[in-house]
Amino acid sequence: MTNTQVSLIQIDNYGPWTVTPEPRREVDLQTLQSRLYADLSQLVGNRDGYVFFTRFDNMVAVTNGLDMDDHALIQESVRNRYPVTISFAVATGTNPAQALADATDLLQDAGSAQDKGRREILRGRVIEEEFRTPDDVQIAHFDVIDATGKFTDEHHAFDSFIHIEQAYASLMRYMREAHDSLSFFVGGDNIIATCPDLGEAEYRDAIDHVVEETGIDLQVGIGTGRNAHDAGFAAKHALEECRANSTSVEFD
Amino acid sequence: MTNTQVSLIQIDNYGPWTVTPEPRREVDLQTLQSRLYADLSQLVGNRDGYVFFTRFDNMVAVTNGLDMDDHALIQESVRNRYPVTISFAVATGTNPAQALADATDLLQDAGSAQDKGRREILRGRVIEEEFRTPDDVQIAHFDVIDATGKFTDEHHAFDSFIHIEQAYASLMRYMREAHDSLSFFVGGDNIIATCPDLGEAEYRDAIDHVVEETGIDLQVGIGTGRNAHDAGFAAKHALEECRANSTSVEFD
Amino acid sequence: MTNTQVSLIQIDNYGPWTVTPEPRREVDLQTLQSRLYADLSQLVGNRDGYVFFTRFDNMVAVTNGLDMDDHALIQESVRNRYPVTISFAVATGTNPAQALADATDLLQDAGSAQDKGRREILRGRVIEEEFRTPDDVQIAHFDVIDATGKFTDEHHAFDSFIHIEQAYASLMRYMREAHDSLSFFVGGDNIIATCPDLGEAEYRDAIDHVVEETGIDLQVGIGTGRNAHDAGFAAKHALEECRANSTSVEFD
Amino acid sequence: MTNTQVSLIQIDNYGPWTVTPEPRREVDLQTLQSRLYADLSQLVGNRDGYVFFTRFDNMVAVTNGLDMDDHALIQESVRNRYPVTISFAVATGTNPAQALADATDLLQDAGSAQDKGRREILRGRVIEEEFRTPDDVQIAHFDVIDATGKFTDEHHAFDSFIHIEQAYASLMRYMREAHDSLSFFVGGDNIIATCPDLGEAEYRDAIDHVVEETGIDLQVGIGTGRNAHDAGFAAKHALEECRANSTSVEFD
Repeated sequence: MTNTQVSLIQIDNYGPWTVTPEPRREVDLQTLQSRLYADLSQLVGNRDGYVFFTRFDNMVAVTNGLDMDDHALIQESVRNRYPVTISFAVATGTNPAQALADATDLLQDAGSAQDKGRREILRGRVIEEEFRTPDDVQIAHFDVIDATGKFTDEHHAFDSFIHIEQAYASLMRYMREAHDSLSFFVGGDNIIATCPDLGEAEYRDAIDHVVEETGIDLQVGIGTGRNAHDAGFAAKHALEECRANSTSVEFD
Repeated sequence: MTNTQVSLIQIDNYGPWTVTPEPRREVDLQTLQSRLYADLSQLVGNRDGYVFFTRFDNMVAVTNGLDMDDHALIQESVRNRYPVTISFAVATGTNPAQALADATDLLQDAGSAQDKGRREILRGRVIEEEFRTPDDVQIAHFDVIDATGKFTDEHHAFDSFIHIEQAYASLMRYMREAHDSLSFFVGGDNIIATCPDLGEAEYRDAIDHVVEETGIDLQVGIGTGRNAHDAGFAAKHALEECRANSTSVEFD
Repeated sequence: MTNTQVSLIQIDNYGPWTVTPEPRREVDLQTLQSRLYADLSQLVGNRDGYVFFTRFDNMVAVTNGLDMDDHALIQESVRNRYPVTISFAVATGTNPAQALADATDLLQDAGSAQDKGRREILRGRVIEEEFRTPDDVQIAHFDVIDATGKFTDEHHAFDSFIHIEQAYASLMRYMREAHDSLSFFVGGDNIIATCPDLGEAEYRDAIDHVVEETGIDLQVGIGTGRNAHDAGFAAKHALEECRANSTSVEFD
Repeated sequence: MTNTQVSLIQIDNYGPWTVTPEPRREVDLQTLQSRLYADLSQLVGNRDGYVFFTRFDNMVAVTNGLDMDDHALIQESVRNRYPVTISFAVATGTNPAQALADATDLLQDAGSAQDKGRREILRGRVIEEEFRTPDDVQIAHFDVIDATGKFTDEHHAFDSFIHIEQAYASLMRYMREAHDSLSFFVGGDNIIATCPDLGEAEYRDAIDHVVEETGIDLQVGIGTGRNAHDAGFAAKHALEECRANSTSVEFD
C-alpha cells in the first residue's frame, strides 16, 4: 500500500510581480524560473525527493522523508537567494491525486496565490518516521518507444515535439482520471508519474488509451520504494528492461 | 513581412549519456537540463534572442541578431562548463515552421541525435545585418483569461495544470497546422508563439479553436520587432492592454 | 573539547584540463569554479556543513554530520553535472589544522592532483554518530571594525581591498601557526575560522597580532556547536554583540 | 598606450541586508555571492570583458567594449533575479589604478555603500567606439612556478594556500604601488592583473619583489588587446610559452 507525501509549491504573488512596475524581460523570468526549479530539485533531491516543474509558478513534489523543518529550511534558502518567496502545503495518502487535492485546499484556505499579504505559507503534515515503509512510493517512468528513430531523426523538430506533447496531454489526463496518478513531462520523451498501488493491467490500460487517442506507443518501468528516489531509480532500471526485452510494462 | 531566424539546439547523444554506464539520478538530470536552459536563455537573451525549453534535449530559439560566431561562442561556453555538448542548426524565412523544418534537415543530415561521433555541429546561415528589418519577428504572447481566479485559486492544482496543458496542446498543434507558427509553454498560464505575418483574424481563429476544443478562453498580445526581445516585449505590453480592456486580441 | 571533521576537496587534474587542448576562456573557468563552489556550499550546507572556496581547485569543508555516503553522493552529483570530477579526503581531530594535514596525506598518497588516472578518490573516516557532541565545532567569525566607514566609503576601492587582504594574509598565517586554526576570507570584510578549543586570550592575541602587523582592527564572535552551521550561526550572533557593545571578542 | 575601462560593481546596502532581521545562513550568502559573481562573469564575459570577485560585495571589471546601456541591462537582469541590486561606476584611462580611483569617487559621491536610499547607481563614461584601439588593454597572467609539484602534492593543503596567499598579498600591493596595476587572485595559483603599458623590466621587478618578500617564484605571460578577453587570452598563450621554455616573462 502506497503512502505518498505530496508537497505543493507555489511562488507567492508571482503573476503580479512579473508585470510590476512593468513587464519584466522574458529571458530573466525564464532564467529565474528554471534556476529556482533546479535549486528545488537539488534541495529536495538531496533528501531523496522529486520535484516536478509543472507550471513553474506551481510545482509539485514527492517528499517522503522530508519533515516540516526541511520544508522551512528550503523556504528560507529561497528567500535568501531569490527576489521571490515560496509557499508549501504538504499532504499524504494512498492516493497521490487526493493528497495533492488536500494540499491544494490547505494553500487555497490561506489566501489567493495573488494575495500580496499571503507569503511563505507552510501548512500540512508529513508521515512520521515510524510509519514510513518501503512501499510508500510508486513511481512509473514512461517513454516513447524508439522516439529518436521514429521522431527526432525523421521528423521536423516541432512535429516531433507535437507528437510527444499530445502523448503527454493524453496520458496525464487519463492517469489522473482513471488511476489517481500525477504524471509529469521531464524532458526528452520521458514522463514520470507518481501513482497509487497500481498493477500491470492499469499500466497496460493507460498505454492502450494513449495509443488509441494519439497513435503513439509508450513503454513504462515501475518501481516502488521508501522515497521518490528509490522508487524512481528502480523504475529507471525497469524501463531499461523494457528497452532490452522489447516489452512495454516492467516492474522492478 | 517577417523574416524569422530559428536555431534548433540539440544536446549531443544525450539519451544514451543519461543511462551510461547506468541510469543517472533523475534530480541531477533535471538540474542539468534546467540550468543548461537557463544559461542558454541568458546567452541568447543577452543578444536579444529567445530560447524555449521545448523538450530540453531539443530546444528552439529565435535568434535574429546573432551571427554564426555568436552561436560558436555559446557552443564553446557550454562545452567548457557542462558534461555534455550541443549542436546548432540555423535557418531563416518568412515562415517560422518552415525555417525550423530547414534547420531540422541540416541537423539530421549531419547524423543521428544519438550518434556518438556527431558532436557540436554548427550549420546554417543567418540573416545578414544589412537585410534585417524592424518587422522581422512577430511574437504572440497568449495567456488564459483569469487563470488565477478560475483555476489556481479554485481547482485542484493538478486539474488546473491539466486544463492549461490541454489548452497548450490544442493551441500548439493548431497554430502549427493552420498558421505555420511555433508555440511554447513558458510557465504559469503563458504561451509564447513565433509567427509569420498574421493578422487579427488568424489570432481570433486560433482562440476560437482552443475554446471549442477545450473550453478554455485565451487572450493574446502581439508585437513585432527587429529581434525576439523587441517583438516579445511589445507583445507583453499588448497583452497588458487585453487585461486592462477585457479584449482578447491586441496588437502593439 | 572540539572534534572537527575536515574534508579536503580537490578538482581532479584541473590545471591540465584548463589548458587542453588550448587555454579555455577565463570567464568560463571563473563561472565553472564559482558555480561548483556554490553547489558544494548548498550540498554540504544543507547537511549543516560549511565549505570554503580557498583556491577553488582545492577547497576545504567542515563536515561534521556528513558521513562517507553523503560525500559519495556529492561526488556523484558533481560528476553528473560538470565537465570535471572531484576527490574527497576526510579526517577528524581536536586540532583542525592537523585534521587537514591528515586529509592532505590521504589525498597525496592516492596520487598527484595532476595525475590523469587519479579520479574521484574518496578516503578517510568520519566521526561516528554516537561520538558526536555539541562542542565538536568551534567557529570564529572575524570582521574589520567599521570597514564601510573607514574603508569602502573613504578609500579607493582597490586600496580598501588591499587593506582587507593584508589583514586576511596576516590573520590566516598567524592563526595557523600560533593556534592551529584554519581561516578563510568569505567576502566583504569577513573571515571565518575553524578553531580548536580556544579561549578569549588566544583571540585577543590574534587580533593584537594583526593590528600590529597591518594596522587593521578586527573584532570576533565565537560560537560552538555540533556542526559548522550551529557553531557559525552562534558566532554570527556573538559578532552582532561586538557591534552592539563595541567589544572585540564575544563568545556566544 | 593602454586605455582601460574599469567598472566598479557594488552590491547595494549588502552588509545590513545580510544581518536583517537577523543573520542569514552563511551557506546561502556564499551561494548568493558566488552565483552573482558567476552571472556577472557571463554577462560581462560574453561581451568580452572580465569581472574579478575581489571582495564579492565590491567587484572590479575591465569592460572595454561595453557601453552604458550594457551596464544598465546587466543591472536590470540582476534586479530581476536576485534579492539584492547592484550599482555601477565606470571610468577610463591609461592607468587602471587611477581609473578605479575615479570610479570609486563617482560611487562614493552618490552615497554610502550602506545607505538604504542609494540603489542602482549608474555613473561614469565609457570609451566611445571610434576611440577604441587594439592596444587598449594589457593583461598579465601570473602563476606560481611548479605549484602542483612544489606545493599541492607536497605540503599540507592549508600551507600551500598560505604560500599562494602570501604571494598574492605581496604582488597585489606591489603592483598597485609601484606599477599602477590591479591584481586579482582567480583560483589555483593564478593571478590576473590589469596593467598600464608596462615592459619586461617592470614585470621582472615585480617578480623579484615577490620572491624576495615571500620566497615564491612567479612567472607571467602578458597580452594586449582591444578588450579584456583578447588581452587575457593572449596572456594565457604567453604564459604557456613560459611553461614550455622555462622563462619567467613572456609577451605575446
